Amino acid sequence: MKVGVFDSGIGGLTVVKSLIEHKLFEEIIYYGDTARVPYGAKDKNTIIRYSLEALEFFKNFDIDMLIVACNTASAFAIQDLKEVASIPVVGVIQPGVLAVQNRLENKESNILVIATKGTIQSNRYQNELHALGYKNINAIQTGLFVPIVEEGIFEGEVLDATLKHYFNGIKGVDAVILGCTHFPLIADKIASYLDGCQTIHSGEAIVDYLIHEHKHDKNFEKTKVTFFASENPEGLKKVAKNWLGSLLND
Amino acid sequence: MKVGVFDSGIGGLTVVKSLIEHKLFEEIIYYGDTARVPYGAKDKNTIIRYSLEALEFFKNFDIDMLIVACNTASAFAIQDLKEVASIPVVGVIQPGVLAVQNRLENKESNILVIATKGTIQSNRYQNELHALGYKNINAIQTGLFVPIVEEGIFEGEVLDATLKHYFNGIKGVDAVILGCTHFPLIADKIASYLDGCQTIHSGEAIVDYLIHEHKHDKNFEKTKVTFFASENPEGLKKVAKNWLGSLLND
Repeated sequence: MKVGVFDSGIGGLTVVKSLIEHKLFEEIIYYGDTARVPYGAKDKNTIIRYSLEALEFFKNFDIDMLIVACNTASAFAIQDLKEVASIPVVGVIQPGVLAVQNRLENKESNILVIATKGTIQSNRYQNELHALGYKNINAIQTGLFVPIVEEGIFEGEVLDATLKHYFNGIKGVDAVILGCTHFPLIADKIASYLDGCQTIHSGEAIVDYLIHEHKHDKNFEKTKVTFFASENPEGLKKVAKNWLGSLLND
Repeated sequence: MKVGVFDSGIGGLTVVKSLIEHKLFEEIIYYGDTARVPYGAKDKNTIIRYSLEALEFFKNFDIDMLIVACNTASAFAIQDLKEVASIPVVGVIQPGVLAVQNRLENKESNILVIATKGTIQSNRYQNELHALGYKNINAIQTGLFVPIVEEGIFEGEVLDATLKHYFNGIKGVDAVILGCTHFPLIADKIASYLDGCQTIHSGEAIVDYLIHEHKHDKNFEKTKVTFFASENPEGLKKVAKNWLGSLLND
């Protein structure tokens, strides 16, 4: 079984990691739109256009499913992609919301959604959580975490000051949805600033979603991964090697 | 006289400000490639392609000169633009270098170039300063300042931590080249962290360059400015109103 994974850049590699670790696919085709990254602050119509172009790219491969790893693209373009695609399209929003439901029975739980501007303003996470009966939802645009992670900063004063900038005074969070694929890389710092709350990670949420909702029961000993990027594919492959290391067979 | 000003996003508005204040043009057509911003970490070939597309856009207007306000585009694409364009094309690198020469006679002066990854790696500033005989040139990629300024942060702990992150231990700088159009907005903080050194601002440098090198001697009481963006032009116009305020006639 062959899956296409689409992201605006390198962040979706955190989703690829979960897919490989859980042996869900025989082959992964990864496409990062690095020439136009980041999507986080761009317009809905632009995101839809870029996402449909990515779908065209995947037509070069005979994929059985498309996973949209980018939260912004999932928030804005999933409906358009589903209408056009002839294969199942899975975004990260619905799996993330279901992960909350699986972990937090109490509808009074305090849920914090953090993401880039586009994802927060789309209200997708907030609306779907409300629809499930959750009452206490807070949402914050934490866009600066993206360039900080891309700069390779995973600890230290810049990250600490930024955590304080966004989360100062926020107390009693039960679970934080890491609504951007870059955020799992600083999940421990975010959780620790928020007094050890639970973190919802898109990659893990997608794995659960595929197994439980999609009844995906494949088990492949090895996953072949091929990386493509709209610019500087060498750069993306280098990051993939750093982040995924021994999970990749070459 | 009508000039086109091209930038990857909103940063070039700091150049527009200088052009209006010095009454150099009757009309300014501004184009920000907001759908594909930022350019700072993108590849040379991508930047050239995007810059040539911007030149195509300006063919819709009868401009007499093109100013490339974006440092990354100036670093990578100025030669290609000059070859294709039928009008003068002025980037920000050469004016910035000449501004150093006008201010610092001593070739032993310590010059610091700060910019995004692309501009620093192009070595354009460093090479041109070396060619003029300057010996002590330090260059630092300070990409995080861009999203920080775009987030509207001009002071406080996040900026302070980032200044320290980049400049810790750097002493004795005589002049810092603000090699990205976002940086003038935090010029005072940068100068103050670097013990009150001089700052070279692309907008001011371009004005000097046009007057002294291009023998531009026009003086227009009013400058009409029209803004275009590859996405969300309303957002760009809003920022323009905030930054340029009463300089704009509407």
